[in-house]
Amino acid sequence: MKVLIIGGVAAGTKTAAKLKRADRGLEVTILTKDQEISYAGCGLPYYVGGAIEDRADLVVNTPQQYEALTGVRVLVGREAVALEPKGKVVTAQNLQSGLNEQYPYDKLVIATGASSIIPPVEGVELEGVFTMRKPEDAIRARAYLQNRNVQRAVVVGGGFIGLEIAENLLAQGVAVTVVDFAGQVLPNVFDAEIAGYVKRHLEKKKIRVLTGTRVERLNGEEHVTSVTTSAGELPADLVVLSAGIRPNTEFLQDSGIEMVKGAIVTGKRLETNLPDVYAVGDCALVYNRITGEPQWSPMGSSANLEGRTLAQIIAGADKEYPGVLGTGVVKLPGLNGGRTGLTESQARAAGYEVISALAVTDDKAHYYPGSAFFITKLVADRQTHRLLGVQVLGPGAVDKMVDIAVMGLNMNARLEDFENADFAYAPPFSTAIHPFVQAVYVLLNKLNGDMTSMTPAEYAAGEAEGYRIIDVAPTSRIPGATFVNLTAVNGEIGGIGKDEKILIVCVRGKRAYFLQNRMRYYGYTHTVVLEGATTFNEIKQ
Amino acid sequence: MKVLIIGGVAAGTKTAAKLKRADRGLEVTILTKDQEISYAGCGLPYYVGGAIEDRADLVVNTPQQYEALTGVRVLVGREAVALEPKGKVVTAQNLQSGLNEQYPYDKLVIATGASSIIPPVEGVELEGVFTMRKPEDAIRARAYLQNRNVQRAVVVGGGFIGLEIAENLLAQGVAVTVVDFAGQVLPNVFDAEIAGYVKRHLEKKKIRVLTGTRVERLNGEEHVTSVTTSAGELPADLVVLSAGIRPNTEFLQDSGIEMVKGAIVTGKRLETNLPDVYAVGDCALVYNRITGEPQWSPMGSSANLEGRTLAQIIAGADKEYPGVLGTGVVKLPGLNGGRTGLTESQARAAGYEVISALAVTDDKAHYYPGSAFFITKLVADRQTHRLLGVQVLGPGAVDKMVDIAVMGLNMNARLEDFENADFAYAPPFSTAIHPFVQAVYVLLNKLNGDMTSMTPAEYAAGEAEGYRIIDVAPTSRIPGATFVNLTAVNGEIGGIGKDEKILIVCVRGKRAYFLQNRMRYYGYTHTVVLEGATTFNEIKQ
Repeated sequence: MKVLIIGGVAAGTKTAAKLKRADRGLEVTILTKDQEISYAGCGLPYYVGGAIEDRADLVVNTPQQYEALTGVRVLVGREAVALEPKGKVVTAQNLQSGLNEQYPYDKLVIATGASSIIPPVEGVELEGVFTMRKPEDAIRARAYLQNRNVQRAVVVGGGFIGLEIAENLLAQGVAVTVVDFAGQVLPNVFDAEIAGYVKRHLEKKKIRVLTGTRVERLNGEEHVTSVTTSAGELPADLVVLSAGIRPNTEFLQDSGIEMVKGAIVTGKRLETNLPDVYAVGDCALVYNRITGEPQWSPMGSSANLEGRTLAQIIAGADKEYPGVLGTGVVKLPGLNGGRTGLTESQARAAGYEVISALAVTDDKAHYYPGSAFFITKLVADRQTHRLLGVQVLGPGAVDKMVDIAVMGLNMNARLEDFENADFAYAPPFSTAIHPFVQAVYVLLNKLNGDMTSMTPAEYAAGEAEGYRIIDVAPTSRIPGATFVNLTAVNGEIGGIGKDEKILIVCVRGKRAYFLQNRMRYYGYTHTVVLEGATTFNEIKQ
Repeated sequence: MKVLIIGGVAAGTKTAAKLKRADRGLEVTILTKDQEISYAGCGLPYYVGGAIEDRADLVVNTPQQYEALTGVRVLVGREAVALEPKGKVVTAQNLQSGLNEQYPYDKLVIATGASSIIPPVEGVELEGVFTMRKPEDAIRARAYLQNRNVQRAVVVGGGFIGLEIAENLLAQGVAVTVVDFAGQVLPNVFDAEIAGYVKRHLEKKKIRVLTGTRVERLNGEEHVTSVTTSAGELPADLVVLSAGIRPNTEFLQDSGIEMVKGAIVTGKRLETNLPDVYAVGDCALVYNRITGEPQWSPMGSSANLEGRTLAQIIAGADKEYPGVLGTGVVKLPGLNGGRTGLTESQARAAGYEVISALAVTDDKAHYYPGSAFFITKLVADRQTHRLLGVQVLGPGAVDKMVDIAVMGLNMNARLEDFENADFAYAPPFSTAIHPFVQAVYVLLNKLNGDMTSMTPAEYAAGEAEGYRIIDVAPTSRIPGATFVNLTAVNGEIGGIGKDEKILIVCVRGKRAYFLQNRMRYYGYTHTVVLEGATTFNEIKQ
């Protein structure tokens, strides 16, 4: 059997190698328009920043190494230009000879990935303007950085790659401005208030962030010198365009393959609507594991999983690919961010009756050197208590928090399933009650009425208007607020009416919960705890 | 309602504080024989080692602070000496006055914890001999370390605390020997071959480890100078006794309370056999969440969870405590270790038909600075594919791997439930296929026959006798083995019989699996992959 695979990065090479292990007798061929295969796309920002020193580290295997290791045949420099599904033939242009070649198949795997979107503005062809998608992009950008006196950079796009590049440029001493057309960084990754915290953090770290800002023109003679945006002109010695990617599926336009916005529609067995044609990786749609809806989720991690599962399916296994959770994690200067499942806004859009909570906790024993914090936002279904998603920020191991949620989401866990979880604890690693469990407690307290609170999103939306703010931090911190000493409250508090609308604010949220508990006992009827307190919110007077 | 709580560390203070939040009208009293409450027992080794500088950090709250924060009444210096369950009265000795006092209760919570076992040998009263259970133990040990010229130390007991103390003494420049009567370090924590790896690692780091060794006598005039063991005499300027703990339940002997080996038997609602008497924390038995059997699991983390759940139960909630997984994690010099669920030997003892696999993987992208490895042993039920436990070693975030398994175990996950898990990936955090998933792949490959392998335990037990060893590392590393170049195998291999018994060994295990795959295709009938390869096993010729 001839299996033809178009594309040789993550999904393509994984499918091919696993297929040959399933049956070394299969004739498996990879066609790719590039000269390199199997490269570390996710590592590119770190090569630019120098964390990855050697360009050889960006390539997992050369085509020759890969062929020797796997038995797969690799044909580089071949760009697929047409698919003829009835005749089961792919036409590819040999980029060296310029001639078209015919590749017949019994099974076809489309794994052509995606390419950077180049914004349709003047000046994108100038020297000093880079995308960040292939090893040569990073190699060229680093060389430019080293050889030119790059002082200022503009990164177009505040998604994962954009922010990673920004971090790495900052590490090289470059003054960085990130520009995004969306109203927030990391759109679809984080809810707005979480993204707002990230933005404020980046600005503290001297990365300027302009959201809701359109790039209008790149300026310069030979090389770029500035970027004109809707927020004014930004001087720039280097520009990185990371404003999104699009599936490499133009060649399929006349094939009859079903696509949505250029991404190939697949079923649970990763099959397309065409017989014996499959699609995996960044060029394909997959299912969201929670909603069951098709989703475009172009990530290196799921590309690998899809490739492996597809190889087993083609080799005869009775399997399905269960889809993605949209998991992601990103390292930023002094703050990491991670997420999985549905954000609050995604969950609402999917029709859930959403409840959320934001908790600020230690990330390990507070007395252990290097301990810091996690900001954890949990999103759940109010009726079933099923966890729907998590967003985590913190200087430390946010990926741990995300991975716990992933396993819970895979198993349709309810909040109660996390409640007495015997997670790993020792002071260098965690807290006696695990940070994830502490966040679950906050949400359960909210669900069962033990706590009444306002989320940072509600607070930012103005829902605390007309409330008296009580500051219950150990020492007074909020100008204009009523300071209350938690430990001295053993009855009525002078000067505060029992039916006043009261917003209780501490540093992280826990003392406010304690005070609410007492005030309720002493007859105060309308107290609300501000989740995330002064650590997360910008308190307005 | 009067709720009396005996014991004021983790479980006691948690129960009391949560009860007062449930109903501030309850009269909640803590009795404790100590002067301090709520101390950080798990932090003590790090105070000795200096990672925690300030002794104030060892105490979460003083009794006064705690009373003010919670509304609980705390009576220190009261040692419970008798429980009269019919009259619902506890008798406690006031350690200051020497007089006995009567404390009536409506509900009683026993949270008396556990104390260090002092081995019954001569010399344990010498200066320079310490236990490691209470803040004053650590404070005295650190003072001794600073004021005396401590060059050599002996740690009696190779459990979590013993190894943590050993690490911290080593960090202070002390030459450390760990002595344990058991045949391995961390008994009941790790299977023997995992503990064997830990022992070899500790010895590379210059911590001497004597397992299967009995302490016979501590020697010295005023202060300790040496330890006589069944393996000879060990010079020692300082000795830490961490050879186990026992529940503080002597005072209950005539109360009619049901106990097993001194630990109080509890039901799912943490109740004892006596009416209105509950027990939580290190003095009580809990259930193993997998086997459903009672288990003594004295850990600060579960003590906190039990306390919280018990408070809810006493306050009227319809809840149960689901029990523990025996989770643990430990930081060692250059290597961390974590575990949860059942070890292979525990799973066999519990009657499971066990299958296990040991995988060596990267812990993050191999090209990212600081990347290292995980050694992951998975234990599963062969029939149902249900995960039963995990043991992980590595220089990095072993707790992450454990926490994933915890959530899987909570939800009765099968191996297939981890297979396409969309775990968090970016190069600074993980690998494109998550290390946990890679380990699951190895075990699934073994289960479905794609790979035939030998575990390190089987190899250590001599099961490779009569096998020809093939070395399939990139370059030859095993003296006397047959070297085979993986990439050159495209048919029969000269000089190797098709029916020979062959053990294939590479560096981590993956290349061996690749070679087995090819050799099977070319007709070799009896190939076996050595799991963990030269990274984990000591290869015998």
